[in-house]
Amino acid sequence: MKTIKASIIGFGSIGQGVARVLLMKKEYLNNIGIDIKIVAITDSKGAVVDENGLDLEKCLTTKSDKGTIAEKKMTGYDVITQIDHDLVIEVTPTDIITGGAGLINMEAALKKKMNVVTSNKGPLTLKFKYLEKLAADNNCYFKYEATVGGAMPVINLMKDVMAGNDIESVRGIFNGTCNYILTRMYEEKSTYSEILTEAVDLGIAETDPTYDVEGIDTAAKIVILANAIFGMDKTVNDVDRTGITNITYEALEMSVKSGKTIKLIGEVHKNGRLTVSPRLVPIGHPLSVSGTLNVAAVQTDLAGEITVTGKGAGSVETASAIISDIISIYKNE
Amino acid sequence: MKTIKASIIGFGSIGQGVARVLLMKKEYLNNIGIDIKIVAITDSKGAVVDENGLDLEKCLTTKSDKGTIAEKKMTGYDVITQIDHDLVIEVTPTDIITGGAGLINMEAALKKKMNVVTSNKGPLTLKFKYLEKLAADNNCYFKYEATVGGAMPVINLMKDVMAGNDIESVRGIFNGTCNYILTRMYEEKSTYSEILTEAVDLGIAETDPTYDVEGIDTAAKIVILANAIFGMDKTVNDVDRTGITNITYEALEMSVKSGKTIKLIGEVHKNGRLTVSPRLVPIGHPLSVSGTLNVAAVQTDLAGEITVTGKGAGSVETASAIISDIISIYKNE
Repeated sequence: MKTIKASIIGFGSIGQGVARVLLMKKEYLNNIGIDIKIVAITDSKGAVVDENGLDLEKCLTTKSDKGTIAEKKMTGYDVITQIDHDLVIEVTPTDIITGGAGLINMEAALKKKMNVVTSNKGPLTLKFKYLEKLAADNNCYFKYEATVGGAMPVINLMKDVMAGNDIESVRGIFNGTCNYILTRMYEEKSTYSEILTEAVDLGIAETDPTYDVEGIDTAAKIVILANAIFGMDKTVNDVDRTGITNITYEALEMSVKSGKTIKLIGEVHKNGRLTVSPRLVPIGHPLSVSGTLNVAAVQTDLAGEITVTGKGAGSVETASAIISDIISIYKNE
Repeated sequence: MKTIKASIIGFGSIGQGVARVLLMKKEYLNNIGIDIKIVAITDSKGAVVDENGLDLEKCLTTKSDKGTIAEKKMTGYDVITQIDHDLVIEVTPTDIITGGAGLINMEAALKKKMNVVTSNKGPLTLKFKYLEKLAADNNCYFKYEATVGGAMPVINLMKDVMAGNDIESVRGIFNGTCNYILTRMYEEKSTYSEILTEAVDLGIAETDPTYDVEGIDTAAKIVILANAIFGMDKTVNDVDRTGITNITYEALEMSVKSGKTIKLIGEVHKNGRLTVSPRLVPIGHPLSVSGTLNVAAVQTDLAGEITVTGKGAGSVETASAIISDIISIYKNE
């Protein structure tokens, strides 16, 4: 049995999902020779640390009861630089303008030769090449399946399973909120703003939905795909982007009459072009999925088009991608 | 650079696809440290052997010009047992009644401690446990991504990328011919037999379509999934099976009016139940893909439902799955 000391940096929805999944999968992980000991957790208020391993059940209860796990005034950076451990699970909120704490944390961890697994898109849309080089120079792992499409396993699918194929393009629906709004507008014969209100009420959209509906979130994800899969060096500013705010019920109805539906599609092509825009997709095409689902269609030279669909968000779903990344690091070590 | 001596046993559409893909991807494979030297090819008439490596371009031309590559009266079994090599690419035709030559070939190869990569479903629906044990006992690889869904990477996706997840069920469309017939019946307001004639004319269906339309091919694939993913020990006789021959245009039309479509769905559940039957699928659900596509929806405990879609058949597409399997064997050795 290999014991891995790890920290969870960020204890919002995803961080708590990771803790829950580690509890659920303790026996599974032990059976494949992996024992993960969480030695520190941080949230915005501070940290809880136990070098002998925290009781995750207790941490989840404390968070739920008190709103924070903080026992000490330590940041994620403090934990990474001061506490002895091997793996940083970086799940702080995404900041695509500056990279936020996530960028500082990842940089510190990789420089200290710690493996990093993350769901935080910000640093990867700003400094991907730098972070990847840092990981390579320090001979450690930097894994980020959870940054694109939550549980939808698009990055590892392309890097591992489709080996031998030359990838020509990746396009898809990478934002569940936009897909929900477009699906419901048609079903309910409603306007964009009516359905947006519904989505906010249901917690599917944020009170300020700009980041989703203007296609910025989708742009961040295709930037990560461009950098991770095609080895490009792109940022969100390189994306030609149009959101869904001008789509009307009438446009959706007309498209359905011609056997098509309108979806917000993000695309990266190997020629270097990155776009986000509403596009017509034939009904029955694998990209024409409804509701909050995400989907990615990968165009390859040998296998043709391969499509993968899954839940793009959700605490346990995103944690699933994080656990798969952790297993891929330690399984064969 | 690692030189791997391999044979291609069977030189029909898939075997020729493998040869073509090896020619296309020579440089790619060399770049990742793999050099594949084909030392023998067999077809139904005999074999061509060159221990220094065959000229695949020439073999493809000979096959196309003369209908056979045979220079010697040797079978696949003879090549496997008499010629020194490391890897057997077993792509003879599927025989789900006896396992055919494929079963004899795989058994001989594994006993001789050779790695086996195959697209041949027959032996895997009859003797899966036996073959897997033979591979384990002889410390060699037995890989079969190409047996289910051609280029659709369902087996390796579940085994590798979804690590950490408990798989509850797999259901999907595993036969492109049935999907094509159901799609076209609705589009053309036609009867089953009219569209079957069209499909035979286009080469999408066989002259005797029983194996496809009665759901036998789908049953074979879910048997392989049951054995490979769930560790079961099933054969085609364990499948509760209904085909598509009784589906009418009127039934398809009625289902579309209620927002659904009819698809031939194969399903394996972890409780041991295997079924193949026409089922209603909501339009917009990831399973509702049209045409000759294959699709598999994997129900997991953490990630929820993950769906993967791809071309279920085709010479180069199936060869793509074979090449991915070969890379996964030799990349890290």
